[in-house]
Amino acid sequence: MLFHVKMVVKLPPDLPAETAQRLIADEKAMAQRLQQEGVWRHLWRIAGQYANFSVFDVESPAQLNELLFQLPLFRFMEIEVDALCRHPSSIHEDER
Amino acid sequence: MLFHVKMVVKLPPDLPAETAQRLIADEKAMAQRLQQEGVWRHLWRIAGQYANFSVFDVESPAQLNELLFQLPLFRFMEIEVDALCRHPSSIHEDER
Amino acid sequence: MLFHVKMVVKLPPDLPAETAQRLIADEKAMAQRLQQEGVWRHLWRIAGQYANFSVFDVESPAQLNELLFQLPLFRFMEIEVDALCRHPSSIHEDER
Amino acid sequence: MLFHVKMVVKLPPDLPAETAQRLIADEKAMAQRLQQEGVWRHLWRIAGQYANFSVFDVESPAQLNELLFQLPLFRFMEIEVDALCRHPSSIHEDER
Amino acid sequence: MLFHVKMVVKLPPDLPAETAQRLIADEKAMAQRLQQEGVWRHLWRIAGQYANFSVFDVESPAQLNELLFQLPLFRFMEIEVDALCRHPSSIHEDER
Amino acid sequence: MLFHVKMVVKLPPDLPAETAQRLIADEKAMAQRLQQEGVWRHLWRIAGQYANFSVFDVESPAQLNELLFQLPLFRFMEIEVDALCRHPSSIHEDER
Amino acid sequence: MLFHVKMVVKLPPDLPAETAQRLIADEKAMAQRLQQEGVWRHLWRIAGQYANFSVFDVESPAQLNELLFQLPLFRFMEIEVDALCRHPSSIHEDER
Amino acid sequence: MLFHVKMVVKLPPDLPAETAQRLIADEKAMAQRLQQEGVWRHLWRIAGQYANFSVFDVESPAQLNELLFQLPLFRFMEIEVDALCRHPSSIHEDER
Amino acid sequence: MLFHVKMVVKLPPDLPAETAQRLIADEKAMAQRLQQEGVWRHLWRIAGQYANFSVFDVESPAQLNELLFQLPLFRFMEIEVDALCRHPSSIHEDER
Amino acid sequence: MLFHVKMVVKLPPDLPAETAQRLIADEKAMAQRLQQEGVWRHLWRIAGQYANFSVFDVESPAQLNELLFQLPLFRFMEIEVDALCRHPSSIHEDER
Repeated sequence: MLFHVKMVVKLPPDLPAETAQRLIADEKAMAQRLQQEGVWRHLWRIAGQYANFSVFDVESPAQLNELLFQLPLFRFMEIEVDALCRHPSSIHEDER
Repeated sequence: MLFHVKMVVKLPPDLPAETAQRLIADEKAMAQRLQQEGVWRHLWRIAGQYANFSVFDVESPAQLNELLFQLPLFRFMEIEVDALCRHPSSIHEDER
Repeated sequence: MLFHVKMVVKLPPDLPAETAQRLIADEKAMAQRLQQEGVWRHLWRIAGQYANFSVFDVESPAQLNELLFQLPLFRFMEIEVDALCRHPSSIHEDER
Repeated sequence: MLFHVKMVVKLPPDLPAETAQRLIADEKAMAQRLQQEGVWRHLWRIAGQYANFSVFDVESPAQLNELLFQLPLFRFMEIEVDALCRHPSSIHEDER
Repeated sequence: MLFHVKMVVKLPPDLPAETAQRLIADEKAMAQRLQQEGVWRHLWRIAGQYANFSVFDVESPAQLNELLFQLPLFRFMEIEVDALCRHPSSIHEDER
Repeated sequence: MLFHVKMVVKLPPDLPAETAQRLIADEKAMAQRLQQEGVWRHLWRIAGQYANFSVFDVESPAQLNELLFQLPLFRFMEIEVDALCRHPSSIHEDER
Repeated sequence: MLFHVKMVVKLPPDLPAETAQRLIADEKAMAQRLQQEGVWRHLWRIAGQYANFSVFDVESPAQLNELLFQLPLFRFMEIEVDALCRHPSSIHEDER
Repeated sequence: MLFHVKMVVKLPPDLPAETAQRLIADEKAMAQRLQQEGVWRHLWRIAGQYANFSVFDVESPAQLNELLFQLPLFRFMEIEVDALCRHPSSIHEDER
Repeated sequence: MLFHVKMVVKLPPDLPAETAQRLIADEKAMAQRLQQEGVWRHLWRIAGQYANFSVFDVESPAQLNELLFQLPLFRFMEIEVDALCRHPSSIHEDER
Repeated sequence: MLFHVKMVVKLPPDLPAETAQRLIADEKAMAQRLQQEGVWRHLWRIAGQYANFSVFDVESPAQLNELLFQLPLFRFMEIEVDALCRHPSSIHEDER
């Protein structure tokens, strides 16, 4: 099932640069792995903001919860989650 | 270029049922035509709400504006628009 | 899977009393049927407000969406949906 | 009587990891004890957020207040409280 | 137990004057009866606003809910409810 | 004249425990003195929140301002002030 | 004593022009009378908005309440009231 | 002097189409006249919304107020006004 | 021309007391000088809040900007600015 | 294409003065370079606030994103982005 997720990253101003860089690198690695596995189906930067719109394809809310909590930047993010379903005007049979 | 659009539909309570049905049918027809043309790239219903998240692939903000104003339900919708770009953690070369 | 839903009912002031009563009766009938089927797992009135907190147990976001759209009062409600999962501090094995 | 409580946890970024772990462990212990006593009737994680929806069954607002203030994470939480009562469309006689 | 209630009245502009006057008179009669019974313990006008702060002394959230729903102006009011309890700095033994 | 005041206390996470305890004790002492003098007429804890609803009986807005600024926790509080007056539906002659 | 009042006027779109003109003329007459009496001490239009900032000099919150409720446009206004007092950095002895 | 103005147009759903078209035509005529006079210096449509960002060059807040109140769509618009001045990082000597 | 300004002061909890006192003294000195020069025309404390409503009489938005940026507490304040003009119901010829 | 950008700068209170001055100087240098290149088309200070309204002329949302992320003050800014297009009432052929 699909979930639409908005993530806004707010790094504390006094976070050491090294720590930030490491966290961002770890976040990128995990994001890419999840994309390759097909779980993190879409990932867009919102232009001009340290934020993204994402679509996840998971088996349950529990799996979504587990993935998001494991993100290295999780505790620095404000997250909004919305469950998606097929729109009645979609031209596709599935919720794609 | 891609734009993320959230549309929330608020039909006035006293809108005649026939008018509403015609508007909704026209909206669906236009939404499907734009999807087939590749302009309305994604269209998801937000579960449990008369609302959708969409992604448009247009040539300019002007084209996006023109499309949204032509939607039959436009004047009954609250719309939020965000420009998208490729996320640095994306596994794709384009902004897909 | 479980979804937490908050529904706030806002009947238009000029809705005829008969129409309102019929809608409310239909809403009640559907709510009770869904409770008996186990789909509408919890239903609480928020004290002093024309609103409720509910928990639905559905097979997919699509099913939740379908149910909520069929509610007779749907177009007079403001609805918030949140996906739930088992809390790590829960004493139960499932998300009960 | 029942109260619906939403708790959002916001740990300060510079809280030492040890302190955080101890607080979280203490919180879990107290949450489980209160569940076993039947006071903390429901506890759900909101998927993807460091937050929960809970339902407490207490004898008075004073008891609810006392319990929440004793939570080890209390001072790091934003809390919303709503009194509940039986919904007129409920299929149960009590406010269950 | 005590509940703090804020009521903001929003009469629709096209409500006939007679209807409004009758509703207001009925509201006043019920408010005075409940004050005399000791249930509506405090009732203050917020200066310059069609609104009041009230404190109710009821036996349960269900009773509070029942009373508020019976108010003649209920469907024209925005209502906020907060459960109260004795403040640890109060000089009184009860929650007075 | 009466003022309705809502105070929400937000102690900084890194405030030393000793300082916090001293501030809270001083706050309590001042709150109790003002209650005994009849100036701080009502003081209720909002159940489950580090916050209170209060009613002050003062001679002027200036006196209210002076009192609130002297509260030991003043700089850690978010405060909302509303002037009160007798409600036309009150059963009392004064604004009690 | 002084109160700062913000008034935002929202005339319903279907209010007959004659009614609106009469209300506005009555409002102006009352505003001018209260200014001449020294009660409505300041009255400024917020540039570009159908709104004003005002300062009233009244004997009590009750008098302020009475005046505002008598304004012909009262039921079409959103009103915010704040009690004022002398600022410690003022060069005047009174709250002027 | 320059003012930044955001205008959001909200036409009532039951406004007759003829009235709306006439108002929109009048609005356009006035907007073009003011642009030619150099008073309405910038006028941009916000893509996908019935709204614009504008910059006015006027002699006083009073002139701005007068212009905005004369707009045919004024009473159907939500307006935000911000005074502008030269930015210290601007490459121009004036506030252009 | 006149501008209405609301200033809310938020001193960081860990600001050394000496620094705070010096800033407040400097702020007071500048506020009094600007009042004597007639630029800071009104200055009221909002009762019970570390905040003020002010009216400035300046020659341009640029002058207002310059003055506010020079305030010693500027970087600890949340500021709202609204341009004022003569109200059509004012009894004065100027915008006084 | 044009984007309207609002930037509000919030420097942390404990940022060393030297760091702040260097960041501000770097920001100014980059802002002036981008203005000279025609990319940062408009830059206005919002009077009395540490904030600006800007209009950027870029080739894509990606370019806008890249520019904003490179701003030395980026991580201390709250940013709002809106895509612009020619307004139908504009007297210019392009979106100028």
